Amino acid sequence: MSVCNLQDLAKALNGQAVGDVALQVTGACEPQDAAGSLLAIATSQSYVERLPLGQARIALLAEGTDWHSLNLLGAILVPRPRFAMVGLSQAFDHRWRPGPPSIHPQACVEPGAEIGPGARIGAFCHIAAGAVLGENAWLGSHVTLGEGCTIGPEATLMAGVRIGAEVRIGARFIAHPGAVIGGDGFSFVTPERSAIENVRETLGDSKGAKPQAFARIHSLGSVVIGDDVELGANSCIDRGTIRDTQIGDGCKFDNLAQIGHNVKIGNNCMICAQVGIAGSSVLGNNVVLGGQTGVSDNLFIGDNAITGGATKVLSNIPAGRVMLGYPAMKMEAQLEVYKNLRRLPRMLKDLARLKKSLPDSDNSP
Amino acid sequence: MSVCNLQDLAKALNGQAVGDVALQVTGACEPQDAAGSLLAIATSQSYVERLPLGQARIALLAEGTDWHSLNLLGAILVPRPRFAMVGLSQAFDHRWRPGPPSIHPQACVEPGAEIGPGARIGAFCHIAAGAVLGENAWLGSHVTLGEGCTIGPEATLMAGVRIGAEVRIGARFIAHPGAVIGGDGFSFVTPERSAIENVRETLGDSKGAKPQAFARIHSLGSVVIGDDVELGANSCIDRGTIRDTQIGDGCKFDNLAQIGHNVKIGNNCMICAQVGIAGSSVLGNNVVLGGQTGVSDNLFIGDNAITGGATKVLSNIPAGRVMLGYPAMKMEAQLEVYKNLRRLPRMLKDLARLKKSLPDSDNSP
Amino acid sequence: MSVCNLQDLAKALNGQAVGDVALQVTGACEPQDAAGSLLAIATSQSYVERLPLGQARIALLAEGTDWHSLNLLGAILVPRPRFAMVGLSQAFDHRWRPGPPSIHPQACVEPGAEIGPGARIGAFCHIAAGAVLGENAWLGSHVTLGEGCTIGPEATLMAGVRIGAEVRIGARFIAHPGAVIGGDGFSFVTPERSAIENVRETLGDSKGAKPQAFARIHSLGSVVIGDDVELGANSCIDRGTIRDTQIGDGCKFDNLAQIGHNVKIGNNCMICAQVGIAGSSVLGNNVVLGGQTGVSDNLFIGDNAITGGATKVLSNIPAGRVMLGYPAMKMEAQLEVYKNLRRLPRMLKDLARLKKSLPDSDNSP
Repeated sequence: MSVCNLQDLAKALNGQAVGDVALQVTGACEPQDAAGSLLAIATSQSYVERLPLGQARIALLAEGTDWHSLNLLGAILVPRPRFAMVGLSQAFDHRWRPGPPSIHPQACVEPGAEIGPGARIGAFCHIAAGAVLGENAWLGSHVTLGEGCTIGPEATLMAGVRIGAEVRIGARFIAHPGAVIGGDGFSFVTPERSAIENVRETLGDSKGAKPQAFARIHSLGSVVIGDDVELGANSCIDRGTIRDTQIGDGCKFDNLAQIGHNVKIGNNCMICAQVGIAGSSVLGNNVVLGGQTGVSDNLFIGDNAITGGATKVLSNIPAGRVMLGYPAMKMEAQLEVYKNLRRLPRMLKDLARLKKSLPDSDNSP
Repeated sequence: MSVCNLQDLAKALNGQAVGDVALQVTGACEPQDAAGSLLAIATSQSYVERLPLGQARIALLAEGTDWHSLNLLGAILVPRPRFAMVGLSQAFDHRWRPGPPSIHPQACVEPGAEIGPGARIGAFCHIAAGAVLGENAWLGSHVTLGEGCTIGPEATLMAGVRIGAEVRIGARFIAHPGAVIGGDGFSFVTPERSAIENVRETLGDSKGAKPQAFARIHSLGSVVIGDDVELGANSCIDRGTIRDTQIGDGCKFDNLAQIGHNVKIGNNCMICAQVGIAGSSVLGNNVVLGGQTGVSDNLFIGDNAITGGATKVLSNIPAGRVMLGYPAMKMEAQLEVYKNLRRLPRMLKDLARLKKSLPDSDNSP
Repeated sequence: MSVCNLQDLAKALNGQAVGDVALQVTGACEPQDAAGSLLAIATSQSYVERLPLGQARIALLAEGTDWHSLNLLGAILVPRPRFAMVGLSQAFDHRWRPGPPSIHPQACVEPGAEIGPGARIGAFCHIAAGAVLGENAWLGSHVTLGEGCTIGPEATLMAGVRIGAEVRIGARFIAHPGAVIGGDGFSFVTPERSAIENVRETLGDSKGAKPQAFARIHSLGSVVIGDDVELGANSCIDRGTIRDTQIGDGCKFDNLAQIGHNVKIGNNCMICAQVGIAGSSVLGNNVVLGGQTGVSDNLFIGDNAITGGATKVLSNIPAGRVMLGYPAMKMEAQLEVYKNLRRLPRMLKDLARLKKSLPDSDNSP
């Protein structure tokens, strides 16, 4: 839908067209950049206020906005403009999965790979034997599909995505450039008890464990991913040691996220950029981890838990809890700690003064 | 310039050659590793002190150094040795952009791509239709240039760099292996108000918002990058939602950095390794973000601001401010907090003693 | 060893077979998933307790476990089950280095490259002139070996690994998809003294240094890596400025780790996911850095030091020290700080009450 009129677009967005509903829409823009037949996106009051900075003739507005006062020829009114962006952005994304179904002459599909109908496979892709690619998949250049992996229908894999052997992925999967699924887990062990094992037990004492070389534990498990998952650029999901690493339906991962071996993530979780989840930790459903959050290994994070940016999770989080900081604590408590840290200099002064005023202050140790 | 004499090299570095200025220089080394015709780089007093550990015959020294006392046959004296490293390292970098202009027989340049004169395109590169590559570009192996992207003259793209469709980049761009420009922004929305939206407003209370699946907002914007920008290995710059993500002239990004959608960065900023800047944040000019710094979304960081390593920025930073810590505060204040944290055990003891010494201490709640 | 009997497997693991030692073993599984001829791995008491959840007939158990009570037909008893996983996981990893030695017809080995006997080179690999690849190397698809690099025998490089020019790597090297070795160091300098230099000296005051553009210092050094090193997916090790970046024998790096220019790491260090080590820092032997640890530049970390997850190291660490937090302090001290932070609200109340109870409280400044 690269060009449409206001009426048709409003209908597609479950909104209401007002004004000259026959006006053509050729794209979207921010209010200050508006011109010609571009629809100015004013998803909030602050964007509405920027409308006079541009040449907007048509706009997307929240229901109830007084569009008459905005010097527009027409508008689309919707109950939740940010949600209307879903359909709108899809309608005008001409870059999305370009080109007809085809296998590029410089791609390499090994004998024994299965390619579904309607697939588009870019230049220099390598599809190993036994790989199964669902129908209508779209692969950019340089993608690697390992031996025996399975990818569901309607997948979109951007340039340089690496899918390891025997990884299993559901429908409508999206992965951005350089994402890696199915690297080996980071699992090593020393012949005798190590300093790390001692520190974990004592919380700080390595008990003089002798230095030893690390021996490698291979990853026998794989990675299993549900439907409607999206994975950001250069993010990594490692395979499990014995069981599989598991990602539920509807999970969204931003760029440079790291998911360790054996991790199990429920449905509809949002994992922001540069988050790291260490081995064997388990997340419930609808968990949101803010950017740069770190989760130690073998922890449990309950349904609907949320962490703020850069939260470092060192212990379990109950369902529904909102956390912040290093170490993670309830967001309200952490914000109180931050305030109190700024009060420390005053506290020290007060304490010193109080000590002086007491008769036994000279005897303090 | 793989071999030259001391005189010519001094001239190229705006320095002064002393001693036997006809001596040949074939490369550079650290003082302890000096031998033969290698120039020992002694950019500071501590390096000068290491000269006796090697066999240095020639050295790069700061003006004012008493080179006669250092048992050298010759030296180059410069006002700022570290700055002289710019010219020196360029002169002796024989690995930089090797090979004559050529298009590798196993590269794929699609019909409709424009390749400037003097370009070098490595094995298995894929240049999509409509891509425009400036003159004297040097592309390593496996580089992807997306549909309709534009890259200015003298670009250097190392192996596996991914440039998305319609991304626009200025002159003399450098990108290290695996860097990704123009992945889609991380932008999702729920049909109804979400727990995340509630937590942002209340700073901690998700108000029991019902769990919902995330719907995808496509990125209609692109990425626009100025001149003289360098991007580290496996770093990511996402495209904007409606407007473009913007990077000014002269910005330098280290490895594994993450720049979210809609971010706008001014000129001559330095973004160190593993920094993350969340969506829609704006940086002024000459901002320096230390390694592992995190910046929350929709923030503003003023000109010349600096963050120390691992600073987590949760609110705006005025121009010129030097910040540290999580959450970020002025570096001096943060260092004071760190000291005070170590005083807490003593404070607790003092408080306990004071409470005991007071008549009402038994009644404390 | 895809199928064997209990007796032979026990022998290979230096363990003892008990029960029906002729039973066949076809793979390994977690206790709850046990069935048929899969060996249930019960490396700890909690796994032993999960045995009744599955259909285990055979199990790997710690010496001293009462296997008779577990309803098994046979078992392998070993002194340290987790260590036995080394041999066991290797025996059953059928995905590891699949396929016979061969050079894929769509790989590109440039004239002047040396490929050892027994090598397997995947599709679309590019091996530059002068590169030397040791015997029995296994390269996945899309690997890049730069000009003149050297890689020892028995290397395993997964898809899309990038090895820069002249990098030198020892025996049995393993690198996961997208790892980058030998990108240029992040090294820039301004013509005159910069704000960064001032802040480093004053710890917080940029002294109003004038904004300047950054000039590039090329990396003349390379990267030198010892034997038995493993590098995770999308991790980066930069080359040195003048000397080489050095990694000792037996070091293991997880995914998305960042090793800056000139860094020197001793033997048998473990660097977990998303760790960043800034330029010129030096690690001793057997150092363990927990996930998301950050190490500032030019620091020294002594032998056997350990950091907990997300530790931010801003100063040197003596040998054997166990550290945690931001900024890093001894783990015990940091855990005490965390407790005390939670006591701050009570401390503030106590202080307020004490101040009121003193005669001079009204005069407080």
